[in-house]
Amino acid sequence: MKALVYTGPETLDYRDVADPSPRAGEELIRVERVGICGSDMHAYLGHDNRRPAPLILGHEAAGVIVGGTRDGEKVTINPLVTCGQCPACRAGRDNLCPTRQIISMPPREGAFAGLVAMPPANLVTLPEGVTAARAALAEPVACGWHAVRLGLGALGDRIGSGPGGDLRALVLGGGAIGLGAALSLGAQGVADVSLVEPNPLRRAYLVETCGVRALERAEGPFDLVIDGVGYEATRAAASALVRPGGVIMHIGLGADTGGLDVRRMTLQEITFIGTYTYTAQDFRDTAAAIFDGRLGALDWTEERPLAEGARAFRDIRAGATAAPKILLVPDAG
Amino acid sequence: MKALVYTGPETLDYRDVADPSPRAGEELIRVERVGICGSDMHAYLGHDNRRPAPLILGHEAAGVIVGGTRDGEKVTINPLVTCGQCPACRAGRDNLCPTRQIISMPPREGAFAGLVAMPPANLVTLPEGVTAARAALAEPVACGWHAVRLGLGALGDRIGSGPGGDLRALVLGGGAIGLGAALSLGAQGVADVSLVEPNPLRRAYLVETCGVRALERAEGPFDLVIDGVGYEATRAAASALVRPGGVIMHIGLGADTGGLDVRRMTLQEITFIGTYTYTAQDFRDTAAAIFDGRLGALDWTEERPLAEGARAFRDIRAGATAAPKILLVPDAG
Repeated sequence: MKALVYTGPETLDYRDVADPSPRAGEELIRVERVGICGSDMHAYLGHDNRRPAPLILGHEAAGVIVGGTRDGEKVTINPLVTCGQCPACRAGRDNLCPTRQIISMPPREGAFAGLVAMPPANLVTLPEGVTAARAALAEPVACGWHAVRLGLGALGDRIGSGPGGDLRALVLGGGAIGLGAALSLGAQGVADVSLVEPNPLRRAYLVETCGVRALERAEGPFDLVIDGVGYEATRAAASALVRPGGVIMHIGLGADTGGLDVRRMTLQEITFIGTYTYTAQDFRDTAAAIFDGRLGALDWTEERPLAEGARAFRDIRAGATAAPKILLVPDAG
Repeated sequence: MKALVYTGPETLDYRDVADPSPRAGEELIRVERVGICGSDMHAYLGHDNRRPAPLILGHEAAGVIVGGTRDGEKVTINPLVTCGQCPACRAGRDNLCPTRQIISMPPREGAFAGLVAMPPANLVTLPEGVTAARAALAEPVACGWHAVRLGLGALGDRIGSGPGGDLRALVLGGGAIGLGAALSLGAQGVADVSLVEPNPLRRAYLVETCGVRALERAEGPFDLVIDGVGYEATRAAASALVRPGGVIMHIGLGADTGGLDVRRMTLQEITFIGTYTYTAQDFRDTAAAIFDGRLGALDWTEERPLAEGARAFRDIRAGATAAPKILLVPDAG
């Protein structure tokens, strides 16, 4: 098959590689659409020692099962493979499984390729009429869905009735993670949602194409702030803009430390929750919300051939892409 | 009356001052015992711009009502004065009242004095046989009580049955805040409690006098870590020692920023909650637990005359005091 192989910092090589070898019970999926994630970019820049070259990146994929009894079935892929047996898995917190694996990280190759192998439990079947392009967004949007679910839980059942009146939520960052969080807030019942995005090209796209209240800067206080970026500056903004007793959800992995105003968080009793991916149930719930339209048209993607993936990475790096998500399209041939 | 007045960095002057003037409805209390808190030390060192000199510090007091219909009633004092009307107060989060005041911070003078004025709602009556020395510990212990209540709430109802087996809790810092948190953990149902205290003098006292499992260093992971210190080093330890999906409660105000391993907190979905003081209900619950013995003998105090308060501050600063709490005793005359 063809694959886009990460071979070293800022280098991606589109080339022939061996087809994946499914483990016992696994399905082989022909990839139809696969998104470029911030974590792919992080690896591409050589900043993720969990993803050493050479490696096929990519973990936001939808496609068609090839071979076996389910041949031809269209699916979206939960890329997180967990054991199902440990205390975390049994407690429904399978995203914290200590032996979790994700495609695009050894020992599992990623989906910037013609084919990928997955356990059947990781596949969610698409209903009639749902395209692979929309279905491939289940993975990035599930990250926001999960953060919103945990954040609303930490705030308590206060939507529309609690102290401070209706819930006000803010999202920092207008990439697919931030946009997915903003859409998930709406789908989970929060009416007052703002998003801060500094890139004017991206911000205009969010307002005009996605119907999101995207701002250059926000005025607090907010009950819930979701940091979909994860740098010092966004954490500093989050800890300044959240109200006393409010909640910060932190999805991004931009910088390892720093930024939080711990003094204010202590004096004003602010909760900070780091979140990693989603549970299998969150993934299924997100897919269901995509299928029934609760997350909107999900037409905020731009498509490029997988063969031109290296250029897509360079364009994203240069801030020259308006759409929050670029989907790569493997050659169907 | 006599008072110990903070007159500038590292300077305390024991001198005659005017008696306090109670506001309408307030009671006057003759102070019998008043503890020295870490925040008093912080102010004494000139590090708290909320407490400018000249000022009477001290907010951990118990004593006797003087005058009026309740003359002679023994009470312990909740030093936090809140409005009772705002959304935070109405929601039972009165510690987040935006107009909250605390004695020892303008406009309210503190309790390192012969007398202090307080609203009646801030006074909890002592039952027969409870000394002012034990009752004065309600304030510092209530900080830990509150943190434990919020931390167990954030972990969910998992004591003894959840993933990872029985709940393991760790407290960082063996001052009165940390010790109060450790005792509150026990009183709220957590059996496996450890405490880290670097000072060997203090550590030996905690083991021998308080019956606490006090260690020089701890081996994780812990479901719940309570940072009763609040410096970079303790926050770094907390974020390394907490288990995936676990909770850090942060009481201390040592350093404003830094120390947290945000990357690990994100990848392992760790919750961090800053906590400030206690609600009025927490204060009453802590006092009740003191009165009925659930917090132990509470004999881990050392008493000094208020007149010698300046020396007590110097001894604490030098790490030369074993007991986690020094109580000052105003001249009864």
